[in-house]
Amino acid sequence: MLETFPNPHPQRDYLIEHEVHEFTSMCPITGQPDFATISIRYVAAAKCVELKSLKLYLQGYRNKGIFYEDVTNVILNDLVAACGPKWMQVVSHWTVRGGIHSVITVEHGKNPLA
Amino acid sequence: MLETFPNPHPQRDYLIEHEVHEFTSMCPITGQPDFATISIRYVAAAKCVELKSLKLYLQGYRNKGIFYEDVTNVILNDLVAACGPKWMQVVSHWTVRGGIHSVITVEHGKNPLA
Amino acid sequence: MLETFPNPHPQRDYLIEHEVHEFTSMCPITGQPDFATISIRYVAAAKCVELKSLKLYLQGYRNKGIFYEDVTNVILNDLVAACGPKWMQVVSHWTVRGGIHSVITVEHGKNPLA
Amino acid sequence: MLETFPNPHPQRDYLIEHEVHEFTSMCPITGQPDFATISIRYVAAAKCVELKSLKLYLQGYRNKGIFYEDVTNVILNDLVAACGPKWMQVVSHWTVRGGIHSVITVEHGKNPLA
Amino acid sequence: MLETFPNPHPQRDYLIEHEVHEFTSMCPITGQPDFATISIRYVAAAKCVELKSLKLYLQGYRNKGIFYEDVTNVILNDLVAACGPKWMQVVSHWTVRGGIHSVITVEHGKNPLA
Amino acid sequence: MLETFPNPHPQRDYLIEHEVHEFTSMCPITGQPDFATISIRYVAAAKCVELKSLKLYLQGYRNKGIFYEDVTNVILNDLVAACGPKWMQVVSHWTVRGGIHSVITVEHGKNPLA
Amino acid sequence: MLETFPNPHPQRDYLIEHEVHEFTSMCPITGQPDFATISIRYVAAAKCVELKSLKLYLQGYRNKGIFYEDVTNVILNDLVAACGPKWMQVVSHWTVRGGIHSVITVEHGKNPLA
Amino acid sequence: MLETFPNPHPQRDYLIEHEVHEFTSMCPITGQPDFATISIRYVAAAKCVELKSLKLYLQGYRNKGIFYEDVTNVILNDLVAACGPKWMQVVSHWTVRGGIHSVITVEHGKNPLA
Amino acid sequence: MLETFPNPHPQRDYLIEHEVHEFTSMCPITGQPDFATISIRYVAAAKCVELKSLKLYLQGYRNKGIFYEDVTNVILNDLVAACGPKWMQVVSHWTVRGGIHSVITVEHGKNPLA
Amino acid sequence: MLETFPNPHPQRDYLIEHEVHEFTSMCPITGQPDFATISIRYVAAAKCVELKSLKLYLQGYRNKGIFYEDVTNVILNDLVAACGPKWMQVVSHWTVRGGIHSVITVEHGKNPLA
Repeated sequence: MLETFPNPHPQRDYLIEHEVHEFTSMCPITGQPDFATISIRYVAAAKCVELKSLKLYLQGYRNKGIFYEDVTNVILNDLVAACGPKWMQVVSHWTVRGGIHSVITVEHGKNPLA
Repeated sequence: MLETFPNPHPQRDYLIEHEVHEFTSMCPITGQPDFATISIRYVAAAKCVELKSLKLYLQGYRNKGIFYEDVTNVILNDLVAACGPKWMQVVSHWTVRGGIHSVITVEHGKNPLA
Repeated sequence: MLETFPNPHPQRDYLIEHEVHEFTSMCPITGQPDFATISIRYVAAAKCVELKSLKLYLQGYRNKGIFYEDVTNVILNDLVAACGPKWMQVVSHWTVRGGIHSVITVEHGKNPLA
Repeated sequence: MLETFPNPHPQRDYLIEHEVHEFTSMCPITGQPDFATISIRYVAAAKCVELKSLKLYLQGYRNKGIFYEDVTNVILNDLVAACGPKWMQVVSHWTVRGGIHSVITVEHGKNPLA
Repeated sequence: MLETFPNPHPQRDYLIEHEVHEFTSMCPITGQPDFATISIRYVAAAKCVELKSLKLYLQGYRNKGIFYEDVTNVILNDLVAACGPKWMQVVSHWTVRGGIHSVITVEHGKNPLA
Repeated sequence: MLETFPNPHPQRDYLIEHEVHEFTSMCPITGQPDFATISIRYVAAAKCVELKSLKLYLQGYRNKGIFYEDVTNVILNDLVAACGPKWMQVVSHWTVRGGIHSVITVEHGKNPLA
Repeated sequence: MLETFPNPHPQRDYLIEHEVHEFTSMCPITGQPDFATISIRYVAAAKCVELKSLKLYLQGYRNKGIFYEDVTNVILNDLVAACGPKWMQVVSHWTVRGGIHSVITVEHGKNPLA
Repeated sequence: MLETFPNPHPQRDYLIEHEVHEFTSMCPITGQPDFATISIRYVAAAKCVELKSLKLYLQGYRNKGIFYEDVTNVILNDLVAACGPKWMQVVSHWTVRGGIHSVITVEHGKNPLA
Repeated sequence: MLETFPNPHPQRDYLIEHEVHEFTSMCPITGQPDFATISIRYVAAAKCVELKSLKLYLQGYRNKGIFYEDVTNVILNDLVAACGPKWMQVVSHWTVRGGIHSVITVEHGKNPLA
Repeated sequence: MLETFPNPHPQRDYLIEHEVHEFTSMCPITGQPDFATISIRYVAAAKCVELKSLKLYLQGYRNKGIFYEDVTNVILNDLVAACGPKWMQVVSHWTVRGGIHSVITVEHGKNPLA
């Protein structure tokens, strides 16, 4: 489902960031909707993530029941499988539930720019 | 009282953050209410903190008299005892008293992501 | 419980505003704590509300179960009974619950400054 | 589906506001998700809107295809039918689509507080 | 070029607002690009402005030389001709030029909601 | 102590505003310092308030014990006595004490610009 | 020095606003520089103010000693003489001096849009 | 097209930053306009980038179809070719498309100030 | 004058921060009042600073003439003498004087948490 | 012109920051005024910069034509010559010209606190 296109400047390590404001999934226990902003940062190797397929991929969670910690790791795993980046980070910022605001940060590989 | 659930991705070190906006306890000397935001950041080992039990645990301070420095350390100790994280930080931001705004930051262990 | 002091400038209609940032009460059904900012605006007649007694009066709701709409009206009624203002408005801004942020606005009398 | 409870202070006209941050529906043409904040302001007659049923009612649009202008009017009509307010206003603020941010404002009755 | 669709709730006067963040035209004298946010507010009669055609209509100014005051009036005239609203307002907020930030506000008809 | 200078444009009613950020006085009961922003708005008749003398006049409250409501009225009375304006408003915004933020607004005369 | 151009839509009363962020003049007593934002709002009759000449006109105050109240009235008088508007307002917001922030608001004529 | 001027202080390594708020290009697939802020940071060697030519150079993309990742790399390459800096970074912040906000960061050389 | 209490968790190095919003002293040359926010950050050894005595100690500067650089160092010296911390930092942020905003940052010891 | 006073605490390395909000100079080519905020940070050796002379020194650029990069370096050179600091940084933030916001950062020496 996630599509890619060839990195147009593969000879240079550079940072690509996509912040998706309108992510929604569901709580696996209560069935209540959850809302988050998903931030994706990566240094591409041969392939870049195509934005329209990324949007559709993330829309696929709209009616899926899944925990905060789990979905953040799964998105990272799927993106890494699709585009094989040198380094990738996924951060999910969740809206307040019961007075608690949660953020999950996961990484794959070592950032060559750090 | 604090419950946990198994870390769904134990093979990867990643950051979990919970910011609790509605913490209140009482001054042990004057009996006046204190208000704070409590920020919890950790890298889980085998167990993650369950959010509903965290909310109820923190509500348990509502009518307890305890100093800023003390309660922040005690919350960290209780959370560490409950979920045995690789690293954990607790920060309490207190509302203004007598024109003074206080923040207490305590840590347990060494952050493997730093 | 609410105390007053004589209006020091009764010959002039003027506006007094007190914004109380740290109000908390409880949901009468779930027993969960609620948090609000309470804004009080009034034009005094003979008496002004004394601030320390106002703070203690509002702290009296800390462990009381009462609905948003009800508590806002009751606070207005109690303040009007205590200081007999020409006009008074009470506004309660409640923190988010289930993704919903609520505000209740009640008034007594006609504002002579409007 | 929308439930109500008796207005606890029917002898006084006062303002009730609920801002729902996490509304989502779908575009009836493209099937793409839309996101909005829905603000509801009203002066109750005999009945107030119960918040949990309001949340569930609005979640009912999650997978429904409906236009901005239409859904805002329909929500107003349903709320008016459920609680028969003296006056009610519904405002929907939609997230940006194609560089355009839209807001729809609809009212029923005449505000006795204006 | 501007398309419309039938007002889904013609029996009620209500407010429709569209804020277009990415308007650009050119200075007729220097040929330099100008940038603005265009805000459109109206009360529809029988017809509503279709958003995709609005976006394309406004993109038509991208390489056109036209003054601030003129383009704001022309956009209003074209929109009024296309959808025959009861009332319409167009506001253009221009980015800073030579340390001056300009705003032009034009209206057609009398707002039945004011 | 308050000095004035002749209104340079007495034939036109216009608005003059001075916002003083660094006002401090003392609580007459506890002796604790209070801090406020004092906003002065007026339509001059023959005389304008000279700014340096205004600053020194307000500094005169630094070690004076006086209540919020009282000092705001006294400042208005002194300014009116000094410059005889057509209309004048004084607003004091006080920093938080015991979780309460207070604002006092007093006026003299009728604003010819309203 | 102030130039004008013909109002391109004289048959319609509409609002033109120019906010000039970088105005500077000098204190006539101390010779110290003053800094302000000058906001000009008007409804044109036959003529509009040309922006480049407005910028140069306002730059003419750079090394001139003149009081806040005076310069605001003089700018209004000069603009009215140059373009004969139906209504015009000039507001000057001055940076802080001795902890005091001042604003002067002057108007000419009656706003046909109010 | 990009012009330069001699670095006036070549004996010292220092940071030069230019943030261009009004960049626009086009999507090579849909032909729709894209909007970005372009931030350029560099440590000059013998030559500095002349600002007017920089503005005109960036305006040259107004009607060019080019991807986010590509245009950011091309701008860096062109600037490096023109002024031969010791180090240069180009960051493009793009406005939201389909709920996604993207940022591309590219660098040339090693920052002697880091 | 500065009082202390025993560090309740001396076996752990942790960060204590107090931000005092309402500090005022006087210029030793002009006698004019100065206003600052004083931020104190420290890692306690055996003793913590008691907040009420800290407030009273800082109020002691209200009518004292002392320079920015001097008072910041003296406050640090007095606090270090009173509680013997492992590390302490004092930062003073002063309100604008003559268009200049000043900040002084002083430290004692080496931060064991850095 | 730049005056100094003896460092009152020379035995301790500490940070002094002055942010000057109201700097203005002129473009050497067009003669148009430029506006900037100048931030000065330093660790003093034996001498500190006196603030009133700093203000007057910077006012000396009011009618001088000089480029961004040049004036920032010259200010640093003059300040270093006057007070011989262990380390000093000067940053100039310029207001937007042609849609471009520029910042120049220059340093002298090595910061002993870094």
